[in-house]
Amino acid sequence: MSKSIFYHAGCPICVSAEHDIINLIGAENIDIVHFGEDSSRIPEAEKAGVKSVPALVTPNGNVLHINFGASMEAVKG
Amino acid sequence: MSKSIFYHAGCPICVSAEHDIINLIGAENIDIVHFGEDSSRIPEAEKAGVKSVPALVTPNGNVLHINFGASMEAVKG
Repeated sequence: MSKSIFYHAGCPICVSAEHDIINLIGAENIDIVHFGEDSSRIPEAEKAGVKSVPALVTPNGNVLHINFGASMEAVKG
Repeated sequence: MSKSIFYHAGCPICVSAEHDIINLIGAENIDIVHFGEDSSRIPEAEKAGVKSVPALVTPNGNVLHINFGASMEAVKG
């Protein structure tokens, strides 16, 4: 199985969702991207359709926005 | 692992998310509840904190609202 990508920005809602998703899917199946640590990944996420964080992009390219931590506009600051 | 519960109402966004979640977590790990087929489960979902569908309630009781198909108010009609 290809990996999913979990995008987040370190907000409390992001961190909570990260724990839940890791528990559900398994850490080995997810690449975690923290925009606060690597803002160079922002364009790739926006191209994939990520509108807010936390969000999970599945192996087939679907975007699952999970709860709502912050908009991408806020992330870009 | 206890099962997660995926609540939905048959909307296109719900069905798309259902496929993604089944692919990610495995159908054997999820109970699927369709409010259109069983509205008696609505109070239980609201008590768990479900505000909109589709939503996944994890084995530890956290609610993950995934994208946005419909509010619970709309589901209750």
